[in-house]
Amino acid sequence: MFDIFAKCIEESNANVFRTQDEMEARLGELQREMQEAGIPTVIVFEGWSASGKGSMISRLISALDPRGFKVRTMAKPTDEERRYPVMHRYWLNIPANGKIAIFDRSWYRCIDFKDGKKLKAEDDGKIYNILDFESQLTSEGYLLIKIFLHISSDEQKRRFDKLKSVKSTSWRVKKSDIKQNENYIKVYRLLCELLDRTNTENAPWHVVNTSDRDIAASNIYSIVISAMERALEQKSRGLAINPEGPAVHAPVKPQVSVSLRDVDLSLKVESNSSYKKRLSALQDRLFVLQNELYRRRIPLIIAYEGWDAAGKGGNIRRVTQALDPRGYEVIPIGAPTPEEKNRHFLWRFWRSLPKDGHTAIFDRTWYGRVLVERIEGLATEAQWRQAYDEINRFEYSLTSAGAVVVKFWLHIDSDEQLVRFTARQNTPSKQWKITDEDWRNRSKWADYETAVDEMIARTNTPDAPWIIIESNDKKYARLRALEVLIAQVEKRLAIKD
Amino acid sequence: MFDIFAKCIEESNANVFRTQDEMEARLGELQREMQEAGIPTVIVFEGWSASGKGSMISRLISALDPRGFKVRTMAKPTDEERRYPVMHRYWLNIPANGKIAIFDRSWYRCIDFKDGKKLKAEDDGKIYNILDFESQLTSEGYLLIKIFLHISSDEQKRRFDKLKSVKSTSWRVKKSDIKQNENYIKVYRLLCELLDRTNTENAPWHVVNTSDRDIAASNIYSIVISAMERALEQKSRGLAINPEGPAVHAPVKPQVSVSLRDVDLSLKVESNSSYKKRLSALQDRLFVLQNELYRRRIPLIIAYEGWDAAGKGGNIRRVTQALDPRGYEVIPIGAPTPEEKNRHFLWRFWRSLPKDGHTAIFDRTWYGRVLVERIEGLATEAQWRQAYDEINRFEYSLTSAGAVVVKFWLHIDSDEQLVRFTARQNTPSKQWKITDEDWRNRSKWADYETAVDEMIARTNTPDAPWIIIESNDKKYARLRALEVLIAQVEKRLAIKD
Repeated sequence: MFDIFAKCIEESNANVFRTQDEMEARLGELQREMQEAGIPTVIVFEGWSASGKGSMISRLISALDPRGFKVRTMAKPTDEERRYPVMHRYWLNIPANGKIAIFDRSWYRCIDFKDGKKLKAEDDGKIYNILDFESQLTSEGYLLIKIFLHISSDEQKRRFDKLKSVKSTSWRVKKSDIKQNENYIKVYRLLCELLDRTNTENAPWHVVNTSDRDIAASNIYSIVISAMERALEQKSRGLAINPEGPAVHAPVKPQVSVSLRDVDLSLKVESNSSYKKRLSALQDRLFVLQNELYRRRIPLIIAYEGWDAAGKGGNIRRVTQALDPRGYEVIPIGAPTPEEKNRHFLWRFWRSLPKDGHTAIFDRTWYGRVLVERIEGLATEAQWRQAYDEINRFEYSLTSAGAVVVKFWLHIDSDEQLVRFTARQNTPSKQWKITDEDWRNRSKWADYETAVDEMIARTNTPDAPWIIIESNDKKYARLRALEVLIAQVEKRLAIKD
Repeated sequence: MFDIFAKCIEESNANVFRTQDEMEARLGELQREMQEAGIPTVIVFEGWSASGKGSMISRLISALDPRGFKVRTMAKPTDEERRYPVMHRYWLNIPANGKIAIFDRSWYRCIDFKDGKKLKAEDDGKIYNILDFESQLTSEGYLLIKIFLHISSDEQKRRFDKLKSVKSTSWRVKKSDIKQNENYIKVYRLLCELLDRTNTENAPWHVVNTSDRDIAASNIYSIVISAMERALEQKSRGLAINPEGPAVHAPVKPQVSVSLRDVDLSLKVESNSSYKKRLSALQDRLFVLQNELYRRRIPLIIAYEGWDAAGKGGNIRRVTQALDPRGYEVIPIGAPTPEEKNRHFLWRFWRSLPKDGHTAIFDRTWYGRVLVERIEGLATEAQWRQAYDEINRFEYSLTSAGAVVVKFWLHIDSDEQLVRFTARQNTPSKQWKITDEDWRNRSKWADYETAVDEMIARTNTPDAPWIIIESNDKKYARLRALEVLIAQVEKRLAIKD
């Protein structure tokens, strides 16, 4: 079992004996090397109340070029932040390649360790969230340095007393801090357990005793220097910068799925008049459900994928026509911007999530990783292979936070696509819709087919199911999408929160 | 005086007689042309409660490609949003060039018009904010289309009754809505006055009666089509897309300023030991003041400009050493990213403002517009000339919202710069700090000198003063910056909020 006190001693023995100036200069160098190597670094500061997180961060950053780092102070979540999944605000703040994000307090605060209550079964979900987030980062090449600042019970009390004695600092000592000191032993045990369960190969804990601030600062310098040196060494040898962590699996299993070849594309609507009537009825129903989702603060996420010219735009429009525009957003996904390309591939989707009660409709999605990026070689095989699991975990973060997630594959056959491409080419007002890239993609039909089948087989989970929409007949496809969407929302609404 | 009812009639007469389908197609075309021309569009929907903003927006966007617009629903500001100047959240949501932002309710809500109280003297500041924001946008080439949706008192009552009669919509009718209907005449008069005072050449109001939703939708299509056609026409002729608006002047006047030539660069510290003592005393004082600013929720904005190698980095570090890292951020300003270049030049600074109680230190600033952009020809003469006024108004938005704003010009002479450049070049560990660009800038010393003198003369306002820091002696410069900073903060703290 992880013992904070023993770990402190060990860590301080591991200190490289260099002068403060040498270490500062070295850190400055390493920051530039990490920038060049494009390795993003996340440094977490956790610790006891009054353990000196502020001043330790201050010491650390005094050696760094401000153009390369950000300090992220994670106070209690605001009301606005509470409208998203717990990890949302941490995802938003991950650094770009080559940059450093320093977290003053972190995702570990999802477990309230101030009162020292033992971890319960219900905390397992929170620990899963922590391990999932950390492994999402490290498996994509983020260097994660977690530092826990330790002080003894007596030292903590002395610091509280000192803070309280001066008017300008007394407001910093909260009641909950005093309580932490009174329950010190209990909190200590809880922290040992928490650190133990999250002390992974890919994201190990470092513990630093801050009784002497100079020694502590030099320990921290040393920890960061070693970690960066090792990461650069690994990278220069062409290896993954992080050791593999524990397997993190969302409690979701893909269901049986069908192959695209087995889809019945002959399905069509009977008549135009019955289509119009049915469309209008479904849209009315969806509007009522949108209000109900809003009232119950349930977010809805609709993912649209499909062949070029399968009719995504028209299908999406039939959904949005039903909705109050103040409650939804259509998020078109194209090639990533430089800002997006420089971060974990899921970052831009975390950034576009709907608030509770709102709807986000993704016109193309995170599945680009295992479709276009796979086929065009924009992601390495290792990257797209591990993406299935990363995506399942991503969607689990959404559904376990209460969201409805529906994923559509709009399916047409190759002949139908040719007909539509040709029609676009021959209609002046529609020519802008067809590009050389569409023709290039078309020539890779078979590769895409394999990739789509594998994607559906690996990510067709019960709470975030894939729905293949037979789309050779556009009108049929629109009604079908609305029907499934309504059914999925109704299923979710039947569950009490 | 602006009369809403009369304006309604006029607007509907101006309607171009086209079919709905023709107008939808035309709007789609125009959206693509605006995208190509790179003209950003802001469409504002305001109106009576239950006037149908949601459904009108829904109709409008059904004709648009979702990749090119965003609907921005501006609910009451959250607690987090209240920690910034009033216009902050609108600035953050301005569209990129070629894109469309549709505001469902807008900055007009800073005036509470629900109860129909007459505009008071204190509302002048709010109207100034509105005119300032709109003219900032239009003078930089944003097309601004403001639409007010009108219904009669009886129609409003009918709509409330209908909403209330159905369970799924009854929650939408708030007490304040009912009150608006009861006070309809008063509110009407207030709205006429508000619209009159903000009905400018550069951002005129359009009024649409929504009693008949089909006619209203077609009016709105027509308004947007005409506005876009005119903007494209102007652009194609090489003209400004907007007529000039009323002169908007912040109530700030530049003070007398000195020329760089008159600065005494012989100033230096007496001894290293007195420097250390004084530095430490000033830093302690600043730390106390930071706490006080935090407690009183006053933001602090420090702008650093100066010659290359004038010592900005070291100077900033002496300030940040004094501060709790959780309360400040250093914001390095380099060449704008594509995302930033595609928007109003002040957008990225609005985006980096500190929350109340926090500190932002800008390492180079919005003055790049009248320095490097002027000298390198990255801004047109018209752009940098109007920027003085835009910047004064920007800084006034900050100070009038309570912020402390201090601007430093770190001044050295040309000889001293040469000494420092040469030293950097000859020290291996410092070579990364000096680039060809630094030498290029140096060759334009005289041009920069002129630009700096003009900048200071035009933007040296009482509440956002320029402080020229004599920096041939770095230590002297650090003490001087701290002293001035402390004095400015103390001056602000002496004012009761």
